[in-house]
Amino acid sequence: MVEVPNSFIALLNRIIQLAICTYIALYIVWYERGYQEFQEPRGTSVIKVKGVTLVHVKIPSSLAVNYPPIVWDTADYGIPPLENNAFFIATRQIVTYDQTEGRCPSALKSKLYCRETSNRCRAGKATPSTFGFLTGNCVPSRENTSINVCEINGWCPEELSASEDYQIGIDDLNNFTIFLKTSVTFQRFNIHLRNLRDDTNFSCRYHSIRDSRCPIFRLGDILDKFQTNILALLSEGGVIEIEQKWTCNFDYDK
Amino acid sequence: MVEVPNSFIALLNRIIQLAICTYIALYIVWYERGYQEFQEPRGTSVIKVKGVTLVHVKIPSSLAVNYPPIVWDTADYGIPPLENNAFFIATRQIVTYDQTEGRCPSALKSKLYCRETSNRCRAGKATPSTFGFLTGNCVPSRENTSINVCEINGWCPEELSASEDYQIGIDDLNNFTIFLKTSVTFQRFNIHLRNLRDDTNFSCRYHSIRDSRCPIFRLGDILDKFQTNILALLSEGGVIEIEQKWTCNFDYDK
Amino acid sequence: MVEVPNSFIALLNRIIQLAICTYIALYIVWYERGYQEFQEPRGTSVIKVKGVTLVHVKIPSSLAVNYPPIVWDTADYGIPPLENNAFFIATRQIVTYDQTEGRCPSALKSKLYCRETSNRCRAGKATPSTFGFLTGNCVPSRENTSINVCEINGWCPEELSASEDYQIGIDDLNNFTIFLKTSVTFQRFNIHLRNLRDDTNFSCRYHSIRDSRCPIFRLGDILDKFQTNILALLSEGGVIEIEQKWTCNFDYDK
Repeated sequence: MVEVPNSFIALLNRIIQLAICTYIALYIVWYERGYQEFQEPRGTSVIKVKGVTLVHVKIPSSLAVNYPPIVWDTADYGIPPLENNAFFIATRQIVTYDQTEGRCPSALKSKLYCRETSNRCRAGKATPSTFGFLTGNCVPSRENTSINVCEINGWCPEELSASEDYQIGIDDLNNFTIFLKTSVTFQRFNIHLRNLRDDTNFSCRYHSIRDSRCPIFRLGDILDKFQTNILALLSEGGVIEIEQKWTCNFDYDK
Repeated sequence: MVEVPNSFIALLNRIIQLAICTYIALYIVWYERGYQEFQEPRGTSVIKVKGVTLVHVKIPSSLAVNYPPIVWDTADYGIPPLENNAFFIATRQIVTYDQTEGRCPSALKSKLYCRETSNRCRAGKATPSTFGFLTGNCVPSRENTSINVCEINGWCPEELSASEDYQIGIDDLNNFTIFLKTSVTFQRFNIHLRNLRDDTNFSCRYHSIRDSRCPIFRLGDILDKFQTNILALLSEGGVIEIEQKWTCNFDYDK
Repeated sequence: MVEVPNSFIALLNRIIQLAICTYIALYIVWYERGYQEFQEPRGTSVIKVKGVTLVHVKIPSSLAVNYPPIVWDTADYGIPPLENNAFFIATRQIVTYDQTEGRCPSALKSKLYCRETSNRCRAGKATPSTFGFLTGNCVPSRENTSINVCEINGWCPEELSASEDYQIGIDDLNNFTIFLKTSVTFQRFNIHLRNLRDDTNFSCRYHSIRDSRCPIFRLGDILDKFQTNILALLSEGGVIEIEQKWTCNFDYDK
């Protein structure tokens, strides 16, 4: 038998045991709720965007600047019309009308300059813009006939040389509404929850204090939260993550 | 040295130790399999819907009721044609033909009534339906020329005033088939599984008892499981979650 | 008091205690980093595919074989144009032009043969191909007028009897590039990471050794890794999972 006749060590032993018990009781059980099971829920959101907007038209290859604005609704900017857990607003669209498969000069932006005497357009090579293949010919540019560029085989006229530019106005965009329908499953506890209830008011607008249960968000309220250049976001695009926190304690009744 | 010459406390001490060891051995190790690592798998499903259906046409703004039904196949109701981990069946479609950008009376449903003498249509305001902007004019309704409504600037004629209503028949829908291709990854164990095998029979129909390995489901069998109003589901829409459970024990050979 | 005057058992007791402490210190704390919290991150990828390709045209119902190839760019093969965490390249498309709703003979592939004298075409039954409903009539085939087949009511002419087959060439496909923009969230640690940095070079191509930080992948490099029949993959389709590993230790500075 090993005997350690030292009351200081024995006391230290008990103090350490007490500290461990206190740690388990207070921190793990009471503070971290170690007696509970945890599970991150899985959820699905269906999202509807509503709003109508005036769209400004710019035609880069044209000198005129005063095109009348046109009207877009959800069917125009919601591409694709329906997504799971996501929505897409096409705030800017660059459209090239009346394209057909064929041969045409490449755009000046591609910088595929050439001279008819010393032709550098290698037939069969893809253009850097990946809009077509070089035919090997050197032809006058569509935008400026005094400059010669490589001819391409693809959808003509080329997008960069003859497109129209549509952009949603920021004021209309701020008034778009986003309707969020979410259902959440805690599989381990066999519990299914939804953000819509029978008494949900569908004419409300979400506000973090005044109406925190409202499922309809104003897009401007979301954009206001960002420290970013909103105009650049509208013309260049970006990805916004909307996080929904469902922290639930099922030891109480819902 | 601390001595407690009490055999009852010593015995109690051993009993508690034995209880803890038994709890670890029986509950944690044997029942909960605490010696095993767990991981929720990640999976991807590609889903194909097949089926052909007769579609009933209703034109709300017309008095005639006997339009001949038309035929829809996957390309008509599968929107978008391909999704990851999801599929969408457009059981009801409301289509407005021959819309162009312009000016037209708002729909009666929007209740934007006005009088030419006291015009309440504020020019530039978006309509509540978000289908256009008010022009400020007061014009006779398209549906009932004796009523005056606000004129809008947008896609004309307005959707609510001149649309056709297509709805899939419930009997045809029940016979649609859903083909589920799933691959699952348990990354921590470097194991990849699929629901299709080399001997999978592709002319089967899933049945929980008779054919539980079949990857092809009859939509009617899925809809039968719900305690809900199927006709309301078809005309108003809904989200159905299909959960695939992959509970595998890799301590045995697959 | 329970006394066990056996120095062997006492020594064994201390050795076991030492083993447990060593196991905790070395394996759990040092090797498994048990003092750290772990979380699997959630991430979102936006993916852009670029590339131009020559497409070979085959018309199964025609005898001619020498159609000139046409050119496809991203708008032709990227269906849908934008997806979250995924991209789709339609390497093969079977297109049936000029279809209208109506009545036409079924395709020979469907094997719905009949004789006008003993008509086996049950009116109202869906065809196995789910392209239409049988009308009950027996008519000469569109592909071979000497054979009689059941007539169908659906989109005409039927897809299997009059379609054109487009397939992307493997050499062009190998040169497609995939641009991966990923942002990752470790929610528990409130850390957000991206694969793009301010100094990212956008004209690079990923290489596991030479350029492992490049966000642009050559599709051919990805396809080369598979032990599969690439031509079958192009003509029949398949699902490729791209796994991004974000194993980060936030005890150090990023």
